[in-house]
Amino acid sequence: MKAIVKHHAGYGAKLETVDIPEINENEVLIKVKATSICGTDVHIYTWDEWSQSRVKPPYVFGHEFSGIVEKIGDAVKNVSVGDHVSAETHIVCHSCPQCLKGQFHICKNTKIIGVDTHGCFAEYVAMPAENIWKNNPNMPFEHGSIQEPMGNAVHTVLAGDVAGKTVAVIGCGPIGVMAVNVAKAAGASQVIAIDLNEYRLDLAKKVGATEVINPKTIDPVERVMGLTDGNGVDVVCEMSGHPVAIDQGFKMITNGGRVSILSLPVKPVEIDLTNDVVFKGVTVQGITGRKMYETWQQVSGLLQSGSMHPETIITHTLPLEQFEEGFDLMIKGNCGKVVLIP
Amino acid sequence: MKAIVKHHAGYGAKLETVDIPEINENEVLIKVKATSICGTDVHIYTWDEWSQSRVKPPYVFGHEFSGIVEKIGDAVKNVSVGDHVSAETHIVCHSCPQCLKGQFHICKNTKIIGVDTHGCFAEYVAMPAENIWKNNPNMPFEHGSIQEPMGNAVHTVLAGDVAGKTVAVIGCGPIGVMAVNVAKAAGASQVIAIDLNEYRLDLAKKVGATEVINPKTIDPVERVMGLTDGNGVDVVCEMSGHPVAIDQGFKMITNGGRVSILSLPVKPVEIDLTNDVVFKGVTVQGITGRKMYETWQQVSGLLQSGSMHPETIITHTLPLEQFEEGFDLMIKGNCGKVVLIP
Amino acid sequence: MKAIVKHHAGYGAKLETVDIPEINENEVLIKVKATSICGTDVHIYTWDEWSQSRVKPPYVFGHEFSGIVEKIGDAVKNVSVGDHVSAETHIVCHSCPQCLKGQFHICKNTKIIGVDTHGCFAEYVAMPAENIWKNNPNMPFEHGSIQEPMGNAVHTVLAGDVAGKTVAVIGCGPIGVMAVNVAKAAGASQVIAIDLNEYRLDLAKKVGATEVINPKTIDPVERVMGLTDGNGVDVVCEMSGHPVAIDQGFKMITNGGRVSILSLPVKPVEIDLTNDVVFKGVTVQGITGRKMYETWQQVSGLLQSGSMHPETIITHTLPLEQFEEGFDLMIKGNCGKVVLIP
Amino acid sequence: MKAIVKHHAGYGAKLETVDIPEINENEVLIKVKATSICGTDVHIYTWDEWSQSRVKPPYVFGHEFSGIVEKIGDAVKNVSVGDHVSAETHIVCHSCPQCLKGQFHICKNTKIIGVDTHGCFAEYVAMPAENIWKNNPNMPFEHGSIQEPMGNAVHTVLAGDVAGKTVAVIGCGPIGVMAVNVAKAAGASQVIAIDLNEYRLDLAKKVGATEVINPKTIDPVERVMGLTDGNGVDVVCEMSGHPVAIDQGFKMITNGGRVSILSLPVKPVEIDLTNDVVFKGVTVQGITGRKMYETWQQVSGLLQSGSMHPETIITHTLPLEQFEEGFDLMIKGNCGKVVLIP
Repeated sequence: MKAIVKHHAGYGAKLETVDIPEINENEVLIKVKATSICGTDVHIYTWDEWSQSRVKPPYVFGHEFSGIVEKIGDAVKNVSVGDHVSAETHIVCHSCPQCLKGQFHICKNTKIIGVDTHGCFAEYVAMPAENIWKNNPNMPFEHGSIQEPMGNAVHTVLAGDVAGKTVAVIGCGPIGVMAVNVAKAAGASQVIAIDLNEYRLDLAKKVGATEVINPKTIDPVERVMGLTDGNGVDVVCEMSGHPVAIDQGFKMITNGGRVSILSLPVKPVEIDLTNDVVFKGVTVQGITGRKMYETWQQVSGLLQSGSMHPETIITHTLPLEQFEEGFDLMIKGNCGKVVLIP
Repeated sequence: MKAIVKHHAGYGAKLETVDIPEINENEVLIKVKATSICGTDVHIYTWDEWSQSRVKPPYVFGHEFSGIVEKIGDAVKNVSVGDHVSAETHIVCHSCPQCLKGQFHICKNTKIIGVDTHGCFAEYVAMPAENIWKNNPNMPFEHGSIQEPMGNAVHTVLAGDVAGKTVAVIGCGPIGVMAVNVAKAAGASQVIAIDLNEYRLDLAKKVGATEVINPKTIDPVERVMGLTDGNGVDVVCEMSGHPVAIDQGFKMITNGGRVSILSLPVKPVEIDLTNDVVFKGVTVQGITGRKMYETWQQVSGLLQSGSMHPETIITHTLPLEQFEEGFDLMIKGNCGKVVLIP
Repeated sequence: MKAIVKHHAGYGAKLETVDIPEINENEVLIKVKATSICGTDVHIYTWDEWSQSRVKPPYVFGHEFSGIVEKIGDAVKNVSVGDHVSAETHIVCHSCPQCLKGQFHICKNTKIIGVDTHGCFAEYVAMPAENIWKNNPNMPFEHGSIQEPMGNAVHTVLAGDVAGKTVAVIGCGPIGVMAVNVAKAAGASQVIAIDLNEYRLDLAKKVGATEVINPKTIDPVERVMGLTDGNGVDVVCEMSGHPVAIDQGFKMITNGGRVSILSLPVKPVEIDLTNDVVFKGVTVQGITGRKMYETWQQVSGLLQSGSMHPETIITHTLPLEQFEEGFDLMIKGNCGKVVLIP
Repeated sequence: MKAIVKHHAGYGAKLETVDIPEINENEVLIKVKATSICGTDVHIYTWDEWSQSRVKPPYVFGHEFSGIVEKIGDAVKNVSVGDHVSAETHIVCHSCPQCLKGQFHICKNTKIIGVDTHGCFAEYVAMPAENIWKNNPNMPFEHGSIQEPMGNAVHTVLAGDVAGKTVAVIGCGPIGVMAVNVAKAAGASQVIAIDLNEYRLDLAKKVGATEVINPKTIDPVERVMGLTDGNGVDVVCEMSGHPVAIDQGFKMITNGGRVSILSLPVKPVEIDLTNDVVFKGVTVQGITGRKMYETWQQVSGLLQSGSMHPETIITHTLPLEQFEEGFDLMIKGNCGKVVLIP
């Protein structure tokens, strides 16, 4: 089958022909119909520091997809051949204290599909049956493939109340844009999108931002204060990973507010705990992965509600063969989600 | 000034001329610009059993309104002459254990405006300054007047998560219709409205119901199961007060679901605790009033979000003098909110 | 091996010799060291209406135990031979919406060990490996065997805050006594135990009740009001299943309080929703099983804290052969937990 | 009357004779029976940077006390002459968005008694009636005086669940010691106290620490991992304000854990958000003041439960005149709470 292989310990990847994966009794084989590029894939592609320490080429990468079940293992009961499916990316241990209390998304022994195992940038992918999420067969495959990152956005935004509240989303990469959409769909009174990239701010506006701020031209803290009668926002969704933006997030949050952080700053960040967290009674949440599978249920429900706009969030759809163009788009940032069709 | 007076211990009310109320140092006088009719007002008007035991005619009734501050008491600091305002209906004691923990809405010594004190079906109303809620001066007065009952709907629907979830609203009187709107605005995947009255079901549909059920023609439990793959709904908002409907609510709720009850059944209701509550791990919440003033903040935020439809919810606007027509509409049920203009 | 067999569709049970169970690749075989009698076992023993509709003799019943792993299936990774273990009684489906959101305890397809499968009133029991809970090897086997019902008590009491709050436990059977202990251990300011049986009230006192009420001699609602400055209790744990006691629970709960119901009333119960739930803003929770496995973690933690008193809660320890004496004790009610030693 | 006056903009304070304060119609005059020294008082006494920027001598400082009401203003209804009382230190505005949602403890316009107004290191103190907390007249005055800082400990520890969980308290000054006591009283499985001062660790042990760690001799992260099977603690209460200790707190917290910060680091602190917060799914809470008045209710309830040990926490009781000795003790750190008797 065709697959995009991270072929060497360096920049880039290669389209190669590899064997269709074998499955064991607890796995299923899926014909991939659509697969989207994640920021993590870009890290692997550009071979950054994190990739160098974690990833072992050669292997097939990619982890966001939708497809049709082609074959199931002998012990598989929850999935049938022909099902339209996507999959949760975290393979968890079921025996650490976190798993035992149902917090699978913060399992201490998580393995990540497409990072620690072969992924889905290919015509076929093998998956543990327990990771399968069944899609409505009427859902376009492109939409199905972006549910995993949409889950990150949902997990972040809905980690507390938003209905009737003011929400700032800092960083409007694809997940930030989805977070804007989720906040709007869940009844936020204002959704303020902040990014340096006008293309992305424009996308944010299309999916529901009530205000966009480009810190190149406007001071975001001042602007947010102006929009909220000097009170600050109730919720900050931090998706930029940039220390200056994070600091601004802590300055624009109101007393008693919530700062939910999905981003992964490359270095420790200085935080004025006394003034920005303690005296303000702020709650800071680290967000990772998706609640398994509560977040997936929420994603499905929000898609069903009709207030999510996957057709706007997906800005580019390319054949798998044109993956280099897709990665270039992601690197330059002038895109929402980029979907590849094997 | 003109006022609608509950003049005797019997059916009906009378338009009379009464003195403009005096205010003490902690009160404000408000020129009423719009006032809406609540179900409670209908009880007082028709002089039902509850009214007979609680209400002492003659007095001015009514408690939902918006207006402009005309005069403030000497000790009042939080309100100014000229402010556009509405008011919370519960006057609370600030010293019971509930008030001391900030649960003012369930104060053990609550007095209710327009029930235990003179109300707002008049040209002017006097209010404790601490009960005043300031409105955006751009908000139409009609919309301002229905924030109090909208607060009941918001308090009920947002007493737990709804984004991405399935919600059934049982009973689509004005607050039920508003609950449908709130659930839709807050991202529910499905909002199922249930009522015997087609006019109200039609209103529910206009403000966001994804499905309407008239139990005269369709079994609501069966239909809900059909709409939810046999799972039942995640949330039931009970606004009918009818024992059969309440029982249906408990049958249609899924395991782990939430039944939030705002209605006031006239008699004790039989509940199959073992099968409908315990084994299902269901949470039942009694909802009364509005969180003071968190709910008012949510109402303002939702109105600001643009996803509430007060112009649809208010079906009739009449001069104060035509109050009898307004009460007739409410009694017959072919209306949403009825607003009177003094 | 020796086993207590529910041998026929009628009263009683028989000690018989049966085959040691076989295990499949996902199961483990455990040598039972201690097993305790649950109220459910008494229902099966006395062959009540529920048992007649659910249970299919002949089979080995019993589901509370501790023991040592004797053998493990080929696919088992989380348990080793020699481990000291107990087990969760609910076998769940992992594929209903509740399981998918981690609410395994309200799985729609639950099977119960010792009810729907062979149980642990025997020298050996086979268990799905995923249901195994590992015990500290220093824990006495008797204590290990009562963790499952202690989990019911923990699940009920800790379904909300109790530290510094007033708690009433209505019904002081073994789980009620454990609930008293849990409430005390978790910092309740007052723990009020209510039962008609003086033996049980005495046990409740020994494990931390600050007040015991026998409704035969004192009106419990009046007494609770007296103990709480007329405010009522913050939390009611309902463990009696009796309609009169349930009604009293709703009368003694304070505004904004929590009523957590673990009991299984045999018929629907009349509840004054308007006055006891809605106006009071009360939350009612149905409690079933144990959160898998958060509740087990809490049970272990509370036992480790030293503030639980299993040695007091277990009032009788008998050889398996004397099971009839054990059941008689349970039927008469003059006991805490009764443990059988195979 | 005698009073300890912060007499100049420099180190120290002076015992002086000043006028008994006048009260307005909304205030009460209290005869102070016991008053305790807070860390904030020490800052004012030693005239640190914060004090220099905030405090305006000369004035009477001190804010923790208990006493007997001597006189009440004309409009006061909630307090009577002769009541035994303490008081909440935060005077709030009742009109900012936080106050409007009942989050008075994070009011945007808080004034602090004894910092922004005259305080209680004196024979008499004037207080807004709304800030009064009534004590049980049987409570020793010394115990009553330390409820305010105990409220900080309660607010921190009970900002999430602790029953059956592992808790580390970093920094065992008087509030840290109280936090240890609260965690133990609320059913924590392990309470690990960490401090550099052996006197304080000894106090922590007396009130319930199951393990004490002095980082001078043992690596606290390693030790905590050893005590928790390598999992880390469920809850960290940060009360040291030291960047190294804060970092250790983030290293010892388990995935999904809670870090509640009451301390006030003097400078911004570097936090490894990616590894210590995001990937671990940790929640960080800024804690300030006491929930008004839910926290006071919890404090009263815990004192009533008998599991708090104020007699151990108060290590020194001195006449008001010996305040210099009291401050010396606090500065050196070889004490729990120091109480002064006017």
